[in-house]
Amino acid sequence: MKILFAGAGAMGARFGWMLSQSGNEVVFADNWKEHVDAINEQGLKIIVDKKDLGNYKIKATSPKAVEGSFDVIFVFTKAMQLDQMMQDILHVIHPKTRIICLLNGLGNVEVIEKYIPKSQIFLGVTVWSSGLGGPGVVDATGSGAIELQQMDKTDDPFNADMLDTFNRAGLGAVYSDDVLQSVWHKVGLNCVLNSYCTLIDCNIAQFGDYKDSEVLVDYVVDEVVAVGHAEGVNVLKDVIVSKIHAVYDPTKAGLHYPSLYQDMAKHRLTEIDYLNGAIARLGKKHGISTPACDLITHMIHAKESVVGAK
Amino acid sequence: MKILFAGAGAMGARFGWMLSQSGNEVVFADNWKEHVDAINEQGLKIIVDKKDLGNYKIKATSPKAVEGSFDVIFVFTKAMQLDQMMQDILHVIHPKTRIICLLNGLGNVEVIEKYIPKSQIFLGVTVWSSGLGGPGVVDATGSGAIELQQMDKTDDPFNADMLDTFNRAGLGAVYSDDVLQSVWHKVGLNCVLNSYCTLIDCNIAQFGDYKDSEVLVDYVVDEVVAVGHAEGVNVLKDVIVSKIHAVYDPTKAGLHYPSLYQDMAKHRLTEIDYLNGAIARLGKKHGISTPACDLITHMIHAKESVVGAK
Repeated sequence: MKILFAGAGAMGARFGWMLSQSGNEVVFADNWKEHVDAINEQGLKIIVDKKDLGNYKIKATSPKAVEGSFDVIFVFTKAMQLDQMMQDILHVIHPKTRIICLLNGLGNVEVIEKYIPKSQIFLGVTVWSSGLGGPGVVDATGSGAIELQQMDKTDDPFNADMLDTFNRAGLGAVYSDDVLQSVWHKVGLNCVLNSYCTLIDCNIAQFGDYKDSEVLVDYVVDEVVAVGHAEGVNVLKDVIVSKIHAVYDPTKAGLHYPSLYQDMAKHRLTEIDYLNGAIARLGKKHGISTPACDLITHMIHAKESVVGAK
Repeated sequence: MKILFAGAGAMGARFGWMLSQSGNEVVFADNWKEHVDAINEQGLKIIVDKKDLGNYKIKATSPKAVEGSFDVIFVFTKAMQLDQMMQDILHVIHPKTRIICLLNGLGNVEVIEKYIPKSQIFLGVTVWSSGLGGPGVVDATGSGAIELQQMDKTDDPFNADMLDTFNRAGLGAVYSDDVLQSVWHKVGLNCVLNSYCTLIDCNIAQFGDYKDSEVLVDYVVDEVVAVGHAEGVNVLKDVIVSKIHAVYDPTKAGLHYPSLYQDMAKHRLTEIDYLNGAIARLGKKHGISTPACDLITHMIHAKESVVGAK
């Protein structure tokens, strides 16, 4: 298949390499010029579990300069860059192109469906993770899985082919009947850990070590669950809380600083409006009070303003 | 008069020096040994508005070692050290000793009245400020005023003498009929600026510069006002908000980092339980929801736990 990565950062580059290795025609589109140049000049260097797997020739370019048309496009931007990315790649989307969106947070489908019908959008969640070791270098650990759902279900046989393609590449993809539930469960976890770790200035294990962390967890998760139910999603508090507890372990993700923390540390704008900010916004729409998410959103924005985040 | 300073840090040492200069017999009681030793060995060095006014011989000792009995005792500890200080100096309090409490936060009178009747307690607020330039060195700027009220009013002529004594020392003291209102107004300001500046990691002017700082201000002040009213105190939102706006100015206190921020930076336990924590506790007592103050209190405690504050 012809597959475009609209955003070829840590996750996009890792997935793109995997799909390229299993015989697909992969193109990377990214706005980070040094990264694009490094991939074109030296090939994409792949390090997995600290093992250097070599450099791989994969075509890279800027989003506006992409040519041709694609069967599948993975969007892998920050949530707030998604709209601009959709505009930049609109010229390579045809009526059968599938857009795969595995981004964190709420509201991404609403952005994509401004440009293409929902039958072309596959929303998903993934537990894959990845990192970059500089321009042109993927430095990743572990493996993962993907859960996907077509936003307007069709019987097109392409859907099964696409899943096969993903799985031949080792992505561990499955179709889901309620991916929104999974998205909201991940949102619940991120609304807690991303936000609190950034404001308290700690890693995940340190947050879990605070004796009353459950009080802080409850404030946010209760709002996520109430707003999720108002949106018609079967959000389960127990599932979110269990997921949060599972990552406290310092031998697992506990020593990790969440992505929002890292963005703030690098003085970048954060995805808070797609996490706690989205809960506050949707809460308002449904007349549900969300003081915790609203307060947290404003404190994060204030912090962005103080560090001059861009 | 014989005046004890139970706690002779920045504020206590400055006031003690002023009262000593105007002819009173002043004793400092403090648990910081280096500070006490420096005062006894070199005298208390006074720097005001960057001008070195010399060194002054004033007796200093530890609280438990204080001897004699005192007409007036200023308590100048951190709120969480007040109870222990009262126990340590109980042996020098006689039935006519007046205790002056100008500490920030709520709940201090409740601590003092465990040991002496309310007629001996004068609660106050002050706009004086001060600093220490190391052990035995007061490094202060500006001047101030004090507002005081006897917690159980008596007609004892000593009260007028005491006020005269304070004013001969230049303290600018006045008696108030509703000092609780002033205390709560100052609490409102501190619940906003101390807490948010610590969590957002900014000074007062930077907080004020955040475009939606009013949203954050409102969350906290609305809770302070509601709980204050339930406690029977005539707390006025406009007054608190005006006080907050007045200190945003970078040419005034704007570039200052609030005391709670400074305690956290020095890995000391903070006074949060006497500010937002007290609002949350009193809110619970009256059945008033205080999510903002409760959330903030827990985030500050989590931060204390992360930095290992003592």
